[in-house]
Amino acid sequence: MSYQAPLRDMRFVLHELFDVSGHCQQLDNGLDRDTIDGVLEEAARFAAEVVAPLNRNSDEQGCRLQDGEVTTPDGFRQAYKQFVEQGWASMTGPLEFGGQGFPQMLSASFHEMLMSASLSFRVYSGLTEGTVLALDRHGSAELKQRYLAQLVSGEWTGTMCLTEPQAGSDLALLRTRAQPQVDGSYQLSGSKIFISGGEQDLSDNIIHLVLARLPDAPPGIKGISLFLVPKRLLDADGSPAARNALSCGALEHKMGIKGASTCVMNFDGATGWLVGQPNQGLACMFTMMNDARFQVGLQGLGIAEAAFQGGLAYARERLQSRAIKGPVALDKPADPIIVHPDVRRMLLIQKTLSEGCRMLAAYAARQLDLEHGASDPAAREAAARRAAFLIPVVKAFFTDCGQEVASLGVQLYGGHGFIREWGMEQLMRDSRITQLYEGTNGIQALDLIRRKLLGDGGSELNALIDELATQVHQATAQPEMAERVGQRLEEWRALGHSVLQACRHDPEEIGAVSVDFLAYSAYVMLAALWLQAAVRASQALAAGSGDAAFYQAKLQSADFYLRRVLPRAGAHREALLAGAGCLMAMPERSFAF
Amino acid sequence: MSYQAPLRDMRFVLHELFDVSGHCQQLDNGLDRDTIDGVLEEAARFAAEVVAPLNRNSDEQGCRLQDGEVTTPDGFRQAYKQFVEQGWASMTGPLEFGGQGFPQMLSASFHEMLMSASLSFRVYSGLTEGTVLALDRHGSAELKQRYLAQLVSGEWTGTMCLTEPQAGSDLALLRTRAQPQVDGSYQLSGSKIFISGGEQDLSDNIIHLVLARLPDAPPGIKGISLFLVPKRLLDADGSPAARNALSCGALEHKMGIKGASTCVMNFDGATGWLVGQPNQGLACMFTMMNDARFQVGLQGLGIAEAAFQGGLAYARERLQSRAIKGPVALDKPADPIIVHPDVRRMLLIQKTLSEGCRMLAAYAARQLDLEHGASDPAAREAAARRAAFLIPVVKAFFTDCGQEVASLGVQLYGGHGFIREWGMEQLMRDSRITQLYEGTNGIQALDLIRRKLLGDGGSELNALIDELATQVHQATAQPEMAERVGQRLEEWRALGHSVLQACRHDPEEIGAVSVDFLAYSAYVMLAALWLQAAVRASQALAAGSGDAAFYQAKLQSADFYLRRVLPRAGAHREALLAGAGCLMAMPERSFAF
Repeated sequence: MSYQAPLRDMRFVLHELFDVSGHCQQLDNGLDRDTIDGVLEEAARFAAEVVAPLNRNSDEQGCRLQDGEVTTPDGFRQAYKQFVEQGWASMTGPLEFGGQGFPQMLSASFHEMLMSASLSFRVYSGLTEGTVLALDRHGSAELKQRYLAQLVSGEWTGTMCLTEPQAGSDLALLRTRAQPQVDGSYQLSGSKIFISGGEQDLSDNIIHLVLARLPDAPPGIKGISLFLVPKRLLDADGSPAARNALSCGALEHKMGIKGASTCVMNFDGATGWLVGQPNQGLACMFTMMNDARFQVGLQGLGIAEAAFQGGLAYARERLQSRAIKGPVALDKPADPIIVHPDVRRMLLIQKTLSEGCRMLAAYAARQLDLEHGASDPAAREAAARRAAFLIPVVKAFFTDCGQEVASLGVQLYGGHGFIREWGMEQLMRDSRITQLYEGTNGIQALDLIRRKLLGDGGSELNALIDELATQVHQATAQPEMAERVGQRLEEWRALGHSVLQACRHDPEEIGAVSVDFLAYSAYVMLAALWLQAAVRASQALAAGSGDAAFYQAKLQSADFYLRRVLPRAGAHREALLAGAGCLMAMPERSFAF
Repeated sequence: MSYQAPLRDMRFVLHELFDVSGHCQQLDNGLDRDTIDGVLEEAARFAAEVVAPLNRNSDEQGCRLQDGEVTTPDGFRQAYKQFVEQGWASMTGPLEFGGQGFPQMLSASFHEMLMSASLSFRVYSGLTEGTVLALDRHGSAELKQRYLAQLVSGEWTGTMCLTEPQAGSDLALLRTRAQPQVDGSYQLSGSKIFISGGEQDLSDNIIHLVLARLPDAPPGIKGISLFLVPKRLLDADGSPAARNALSCGALEHKMGIKGASTCVMNFDGATGWLVGQPNQGLACMFTMMNDARFQVGLQGLGIAEAAFQGGLAYARERLQSRAIKGPVALDKPADPIIVHPDVRRMLLIQKTLSEGCRMLAAYAARQLDLEHGASDPAAREAAARRAAFLIPVVKAFFTDCGQEVASLGVQLYGGHGFIREWGMEQLMRDSRITQLYEGTNGIQALDLIRRKLLGDGGSELNALIDELATQVHQATAQPEMAERVGQRLEEWRALGHSVLQACRHDPEEIGAVSVDFLAYSAYVMLAALWLQAAVRASQALAAGSGDAAFYQAKLQSADFYLRRVLPRAGAHREALLAGAGCLMAMPERSFAF
């Protein structure tokens, strides 16, 4: 499977839909349109030429653990070296520590490309960027000075050590302990599982961020602190030297992302340093959660785009049967399967979900940028609220879409979809993890209802709907689509109100409505964005500014989405309105006899 | 993962819902209730003790090809030997050739168990049963005499050699050739792909049924004939002797069912014999298609049941967080996750889809039995029409359910779901093929619309709805559920009418509505069956005949299904009513830029 970044669509989203140049001016980062387009083109080349060719073999070869050392698949080391040397690693890092400070709205496009090219390869750097964020926001000046520049450059990588065998979704059950030492450091002891990039051969040092308990910590989540624990301790001049007392005990055998090492990490009195305040570890982690979850959302989008490209290429080449209204490829023994309505149905679901998620990703990225970079504190706060609301939706919905679109990719290939060499089944296997890690999609949905909807009594939901409704009122170029979307937005508002009432009345409703409410919200949000895309396309067509086929396709895609995908929202609405009763009635012993 | 056959539910479906004893009396096969229950119990033991333990290793080990010989995973040979010796292979075979002639309504339960225990292991015998059917119905007396008894007993196995690299869904493109010989045999030359069990080490001989073209055959599907081509030619006394000129050229590397060999089969002037009439090969294949597709439907059901059992076991054991209304397991650090509403939502989807498909499987099996075994010719014809209508639904919907339920299994396990040793991801990988082979699910949906709905102008659909509506009118024990189901049935009738009109008016509507109409039909049919289950449960509770918790659970499950799963039907209906226009509008070149 080859991959080519969808540059035309990315430019449409960034420039035509969301005015990324204006956004950059607002952020005062000096990036103009030419620079942005140049970066996108270079990024596309890197993803297609350096990363994508590694992906298929990485799945076959996987990672190997021998004598505590992990070997990544062939080519990963060289590609990672280029990734660092060419400055891709430092794209979003803070300027102060050598980063380039790119806004998420732009870097999201590059990261989407990386996800499409190889989810496994991207895992290592993605977690490093998370480590940078956490350390930059919560680390002491000394820790930053010793570790941050090398993490920003990608010379060193980072991990997140949260999960333990008994503590997954419920971190209150965490047991790893940190013993204070006289020199101000701590000794960490415990076992962590599912640590992506916990051990590998890409970087000279690995900086682990580890959640652990201090001796006097209160039980539960209020007694968890965050520590920085390097694989190699630094010597006086800051170079990695002696091995710390930690090791990779095993690699997990997984369904997919086999090129990403997933490690059991054992800390045996390893030396570490506190990041942030004692017992505030979860809060420290949460400040970077939005960014990390946004990245996982991009994984879903990246997989979806890759599966769409794979499906489309096959549908154009594979010859089976004739078009029902008469042959199209008269010179061939059969027509390419893209002539068949049901094949088009699958391709258009792939296309409109991928492009729809791309719009929502850019919209969410803008909020993340403004949250941290807007000059006006009120704008920062508003963007923070909006981002907080959107992120669980982006994480869960995009990854569900990634899985669905990858599965459609398999289906488009028929029996060949099941065969490894074609690459479609790998996308399905790789993407399946994205619905699980960084908080399962069920956890995302609980977060949306509990913290984001109940948390402010629905005011952020209503603010978002108000904004989208304003766009609907201005969508005079597409009155029929506008009416359809406008109705859904008001239905969403009413549904949000019902959900709030129900959850206040019965807390079991929170978990009963959560997943369906998240999905409903996502489908309606995408509808609103497809309307905006259609309006821009109409304007471009009216202006006769060229590229007519591209803009016509946007109108056709919007029409398809509203007619054939959006109806799913209704099913989620009806299901969630059924209430918690039918979930809770059955006694545990009656689930099977 | 351990597996235990859901015997209580199977007895409910067979005895209480569909009166399998009466059915057997009607078929005059001498099976009474005690025999049936005895067979079910023995079958459950065989599946759980002999087959299920092989499944995990078979995925790790896979099949190996060396010097043209295929080695199946450890234990398959011994288990297959027991399968044959204990008579499980011959369960459905014709009495005349040593079979036991069991009705499908009963054998379906055993086959479901096999699918749950190991899809890979079941592939070999499933195809053999298909070979028996085709040969029994179309083979000459001489061919039957030479091959059938050993195929019925399972001593020899069978394959279906249809697909070629350029001919998958479209068999018109088939190229394998058969050259007549003076002795009445044929020499077959060509290459077939995706041949399950094409080579293996389980049986002394492998009997290939091969589609090929005679020299004077017309082009397209009207020029395809069916041939029997044994791996080993038989000597004078009927024993396998000299190797025929055919070989396994390669094994496919697949996403799942790795214990089942999937072979490239090369025929290099191999000796074969015509089965049925020249150029009638597809018709011969089609007479066994219903049975083969029914078997694949059972694979979906079997996977669903296995994933439900896995998910339920984990949800009862895994301790994470507390129930929102207060702790349940006070002696433990957290509550089992089955207390959480969203976990219950996933489990109940798993449960109601599995049990719902089980009811529909029994209903469809009854039609297959009556089609071949009813004494009254009119009853045979009516059953044949009903079976023909149901089979594409069973094949496509059950396998879609299998994939969904397996994916929910993965989700229930959180990160552990992605790890191979837990077995849930294997179920997802194994089941993914079922949506592709024996006609992709898209092909099933086209078959439903084209042959089954348009084919008779909707009369069979209406007859089915009439029958289900009669049950609704009699469902006085559950008036609320009955009303809900009754409305859907009339909506279905109207939708069928609309679809018919639309497809007659524009043939592109056939492929535009097909997948959504199939899904809609399936959800409504399951709703009607859940209503019948609820009525039986109400009657049993009213009669105070014991097992109250079981019957209560049936009522709770029916309620859940109608409230939280059935709403999906509405989304499918709305999507398919959108028409073909939004699928066909986009020019092929505009799918990507």
